[in-house]
Amino acid sequence: MKNEGDRNMDLSPQERLDYMPGKKRNIFQRKDIFSFSMDAVLLAKFAYIPKNKGKIIDLCAGNGAIPLMLSIRTDFKIDAVEIQEALCDLMKKSIIYNGLENQINVIHKNILELTDEVSWGTYDLVTCNPPYFPMAASDRHNKNEKLLFARHEYACTLEDVIRISSKLLNFSGRFAMVHRPERIVDIMTLMQKYKLEPKKIQFVYPKKGREANMVLVEGIRGGKPGIKTLYPFFVYGEGQDYTEEFKTHYENW
Amino acid sequence: MKNEGDRNMDLSPQERLDYMPGKKRNIFQRKDIFSFSMDAVLLAKFAYIPKNKGKIIDLCAGNGAIPLMLSIRTDFKIDAVEIQEALCDLMKKSIIYNGLENQINVIHKNILELTDEVSWGTYDLVTCNPPYFPMAASDRHNKNEKLLFARHEYACTLEDVIRISSKLLNFSGRFAMVHRPERIVDIMTLMQKYKLEPKKIQFVYPKKGREANMVLVEGIRGGKPGIKTLYPFFVYGEGQDYTEEFKTHYENW
Repeated sequence: MKNEGDRNMDLSPQERLDYMPGKKRNIFQRKDIFSFSMDAVLLAKFAYIPKNKGKIIDLCAGNGAIPLMLSIRTDFKIDAVEIQEALCDLMKKSIIYNGLENQINVIHKNILELTDEVSWGTYDLVTCNPPYFPMAASDRHNKNEKLLFARHEYACTLEDVIRISSKLLNFSGRFAMVHRPERIVDIMTLMQKYKLEPKKIQFVYPKKGREANMVLVEGIRGGKPGIKTLYPFFVYGEGQDYTEEFKTHYENW
Repeated sequence: MKNEGDRNMDLSPQERLDYMPGKKRNIFQRKDIFSFSMDAVLLAKFAYIPKNKGKIIDLCAGNGAIPLMLSIRTDFKIDAVEIQEALCDLMKKSIIYNGLENQINVIHKNILELTDEVSWGTYDLVTCNPPYFPMAASDRHNKNEKLLFARHEYACTLEDVIRISSKLLNFSGRFAMVHRPERIVDIMTLMQKYKLEPKKIQFVYPKKGREANMVLVEGIRGGKPGIKTLYPFFVYGEGQDYTEEFKTHYENW
């Protein structure tokens, strides 16, 4: 579904054009707002993509890292919902630059306010790399509201994400999320509450001997209980280099 | 608290006297009933033992592998509850053989029927290596009832174990359990339900590239939400040998 792409686009001040891992996609970024992270890339590879038919939606899409990477793996249509206008603008530029206007559809909205821009109960896959940190009262004074949106449960909570994902999915559709391991108890109890049975989990450890700092989870709407704990990833070996296994996984697209 | 121990004990038919890892404890076993497994040993090392005062209880104690191993790490008193008489008998023989009569107290009961053999709400640590598999109707026809008790939720369910553990613990007491990773969703939702907040989890992978097949979980009664995912264990390297790291962990007592 990829077009030629328009490679003649101007960079506004503060903007940057980066390669994504594997160098099959470029992405417009602005460091003062938000840059994609390893989490999004791992989620885009972790998510199971249905074989024959598929309708995909990415929530809290940011500047579009997940939809851009998913578009390497599938031709299915992808809706991408993002609350911040500046991030939607970056995402749209990346979509045009990569020639993906026919595949990725940007929806500029708070996920809590979605109505008929989306077709409820029909998606086969919902992906989400949500804000990780619960709001503390002190966070409201944070001056950079744009980072607050991206990092804290400011515009929507974990429960909102899971509740809305469940409503978006068809029966036996899949939900794939990346989050912090500190939250797995909440994640699992909320997924069960909203009938997204956790079926697959994978932890990411930054280095030998250290605690996990990332977790990938997949749930199936209406699935039977029973979860698999996949073999984990170890990001860094000695020093600042990726382990060979991680490098292969992360950069082969 | 260790006495001399009585090393002049007869082996009944079918009985065997084995070393436990580290060779600091011996254990009487009967293969036709139940033998201790790696799970119990890992749990006895995973469990946090309070520093100054401590009262410990082990539920579903089997032939006593966990209390025997815990007694290497602490002098605190340990109650050990087991439903099967034959396993209680083995456990008692091991206690005498190792000279631990003053430390380990065997309670021959179904955990569901515990009354005043135990002092509710006063334990600092509850350990449990419970039966792993839910009962299917077909399992009721299993002729070896002794193995049914040990492997299936025949006499008590996961929910029973967690509910009773919570009642046994004092506020901020710890619950440590080993189980199958397939059940982590149930484990976490039930622990939260009974106010044993999951605080620490550690997965065990049999081999490189394989799914986890064991999980260790610690909860604190009345603890605040937030769980740590410890660096995992990898049991086997190439072939049938333990990895060096696992061997060190498993055999150093």
